[in-house]
Order: sequence, then structure tokens, then C-alpha cells
Amino acid sequence: MDGLRLYIGNKNYSSWSLRPWIAMTAAGIVFEEVLIPFDDAGGNPKFKEFSPTGRVPVLQHGALHVWESLAIIEYVAELFPDAGIWPYDPADRAMARSISMEMLSGFRALRGACPMNIRREKRAIDLPEGVMQDVGRITEIWKTMRQRSRGPFLFGPFSGADAMFAPVVNRLDVYDIPVDENAEDYMDAMKAHPAWIAWRDAALAETWVVPADEA
Amino acid sequence: MDGLRLYIGNKNYSSWSLRPWIAMTAAGIVFEEVLIPFDDAGGNPKFKEFSPTGRVPVLQHGALHVWESLAIIEYVAELFPDAGIWPYDPADRAMARSISMEMLSGFRALRGACPMNIRREKRAIDLPEGVMQDVGRITEIWKTMRQRSRGPFLFGPFSGADAMFAPVVNRLDVYDIPVDENAEDYMDAMKAHPAWIAWRDAALAETWVVPADEA
Ligand SMILES: N[C@@H](CCC(=O)N[C@@H](CS)C(=O)NCC(=O)O)C(=O)O
Ligand SMILES: N[C@@H](CCC(=O)N[C@@H](CS)C(=O)NCC(=O)O)C(=O)O
Repeated sequence: MDGLRLYIGNKNYSSWSLRPWIAMTAAGIVFEEVLIPFDDAGGNPKFKEFSPTGRVPVLQHGALHVWESLAIIEYVAELFPDAGIWPYDPADRAMARSISMEMLSGFRALRGACPMNIRREKRAIDLPEGVMQDVGRITEIWKTMRQRSRGPFLFGPFSGADAMFAPVVNRLDVYDIPVDENAEDYMDAMKAHPAWIAWRDAALAETWVVPADEA
Repeated sequence: MDGLRLYIGNKNYSSWSLRPWIAMTAAGIVFEEVLIPFDDAGGNPKFKEFSPTGRVPVLQHGALHVWESLAIIEYVAELFPDAGIWPYDPADRAMARSISMEMLSGFRALRGACPMNIRREKRAIDLPEGVMQDVGRITEIWKTMRQRSRGPFLFGPFSGADAMFAPVVNRLDVYDIPVDENAEDYMDAMKAHPAWIAWRDAALAETWVVPADEA
């Protein structure tokens, strides 16, 4: 089998890159990582060389390029069906996809106002309209799923759905957004996961600053 | 097996409802349809009774509720693995998901300015910034995929990816947006598909008007 190569942006800022990276790393999948830093506006014309959308992440596997974070997660879940990327139970798996797609298509108020920023010191900001509504729905999802599975993660062990919500853990944390106890427990579980720690440490060691993502 | 029940909004306007509906219908899947009309703003408080997001579509299967259009398509693709909802070839399937997720998460300029409206008489409108860029990327996707598969649909026969792009066919049509010949051919194939025709005829027979979706 050809090796897998994952193109990503800065670990400090690239929330969409974190998602497949942490899903693959947590599942024990070995891949080559190619990090291409963002320019000041949070893009890079070079992305066009390997990405049909001009965005990261992209997974390259031989001649195949897979783009969109969640499509990459689906691809590796098929490639390694026993790695536990999706929950084993069909109903759990369906809900894991429902909430992953809610993340992919929604929560734009939170995503716009509070860019992921691993290095940021915890500090509250004025939150525009809609952000607390997004936070309310996210923490409701986390509570519903963890009550069903009894945690620590959304479907018990770490899954692709947790990967999709990983960047939100940083956002709630560094913008000091108040959440319920279940959410705090979930965030603690995420921040104690070895794959999270590896990404975080690499992000902390980066020195690039992207002004557009400093809220 | 319990029966499948799909909750949808108005056929004239509900682009997200059309996606799983046409995927399931084109694949020959039998299901009960429950249509709940929108209010003037394009929502309905009743959706909350069966939908965790308060939005349609939702697929009910016994005790399970699956929300998000593309998660529904994934669910039925797993339930009926030989129905051809996703392409058989793994690389095709990966790309089908990449473009489906691009649709789910993007093209917001086009989606915002040009709501799906099956009944609308063809008439051009002033297009805000960003719309023609979305159209350019969509028609590029259609060209790339149809050149690989030799058509008529994106991966040869009708698939879940075509279902995700179906509402765009109406938009390009009724807002009279100029497109290349490949896109015209693709739109013709879509509009000749029996599942499209069935949805369209039902939409034409509706009399509800949603002012928020009349651009
Ligand atoms: N829906 C896409 C979003 C990808 C995305 O927006 N990536 C950002 C970095 S986190 C990017 O490449 N931005 C550069 C640009 O838009 O020019 C996914 O899930 O992969
Ligand atoms: N990302 C969702 C979008 C669903 C959606 O926005 N549905 C619309 C109708 S097409 C809706 O229910 N709107 C009512 C509302 O937002 O209150 C999906 O793919 O299912």
C-alpha cells in the first residue's frame, strides 16, 4: 500500500487540519505530515498545487487526493475498518455522522468570532450574537451523547465525531466561555488524550502569527 | 425491519430535504414521507418535535432519528449497500464524499442569494459578490467528475453526490445563470431523471408561498 500524506496548515490555527490529523493519530494510523504555513490572511496560494479547493487539509494516497476534513476521516475509516474511527453500532454511527455534519455545516457564529488558537492565553472577548446559541447546542450534543455512552468521549472511546469537535474544546477554553460540568469533563478528557497533547505541543512550538486569526 | 420515515419541508423550497429524498428515491428505497410546511420565515416550531436541530430533513427508523441531509444519505447507503448510493470504486467514493461535503459546508453566496424554488419562472437577478465564484467552482466539479466517469451523472449512474448537487440544478436554471455546455448536459440529465420529475411535479402542485425564499 502506498503511504498516506496529510497536508495541513499551522497547528496553532488550522482547526480543519486538526480534525483528520487527530482522528488518524488517535486511531494509530501512520502518515507523513506536510505542514504549509498560512500567510497573514490565513491562506496560501501554494495550497492550489495539491488542493482542488485551495484549502487544507488534503490527504494524498498515491494518485488520489481527498479534500474536506470529514471526507478524509471517512476515507481512512474505510481503509482501516477495525481502527474504531466510527462507532461499531449502526445507530451510534448514524448519530456520530449527524453531529459531525452539524459541525461541518454549522456553528458559524462561534467559528467566525473565536478562531482556534492553541497558544492564546485564556481571555474572554465580547461575543457577537449567535455565539452563545452555538455553544448551547454544542454542549447539548456533548451531554446527550455522553449520557448515552457514559463517556469519556462522545461514543465511549475516541471517535471521528470527537475529532470533528476537537477544535471547539480549544475555543471554549481560550475565550473563557462558561459551560456546564459535562462539557468541562469532556474538555478534560480531550485535553488528556495523547494525540491532543502531541498536536498542542507542536502548536506551542510554532512561532508564526496570523493576524486574521488573533481575535 | 422497521419502515423508514423521512420528514421534509415544502418540495418547492426545501433544498436540504430534496437531497436525501432524491438519493433514496433514485436508489429504489421505499419510505414514508411526512411533509411539514414552512412558515413565512422558512422554519416551523413543530420541527423541534422530531428534529434535534429544529431543521428538516430527518430520517426516522424505529427509535433512531438521523438528522443532517448527508448523514441520512450515509445511513441508507449502509442499510442498502448494493443500492449504488455511493460509487463502488474507493477512489470514486472518496471524491464523491469530498464534493458532497464541499456542498454541505460551502457555496454560501449562491445558497443565500438564490434559494431553491422549483415553481419560479426563469428570471435573472442581480447576483451579489461571490455567487459567480461559487458557480465557477461547481461547474468545475461537474466537468472534472463527468470527464472522469463519462457521465451522464458525476460518477456515471446517479449517486449520493448527484443528490447533494440536485438543488443547484434548479438554482442555475431559474435564476438564468450562464453555464458551460458540460453543465447544461448535466442539468439536462438531472431534469430527465424520474426521481427529479416526481419531486418537481409535486412541487409544482404546492400552493404554499414562503416570502423569505422568493428572491
Ligand atoms: N470545509 C473544509 C474547510 C477547510 C478550510 O477552510 N481550511 C482553512 C484552514 S483551517 C483554509 O485552508 N483556509 C485557506 C483559504 O480559505 O484560503 C474542510 O472541512 O476541510
Ligand atoms: N445542514 C442541514 C441543513 C438543514 C436546513 O437548513 N434545513 C432547512 C430547510 S431546507 C430548515 O429546516 N430550516 C428551518 C430553520 O432553520 O428553522 C442539512 O444538511 O440537513
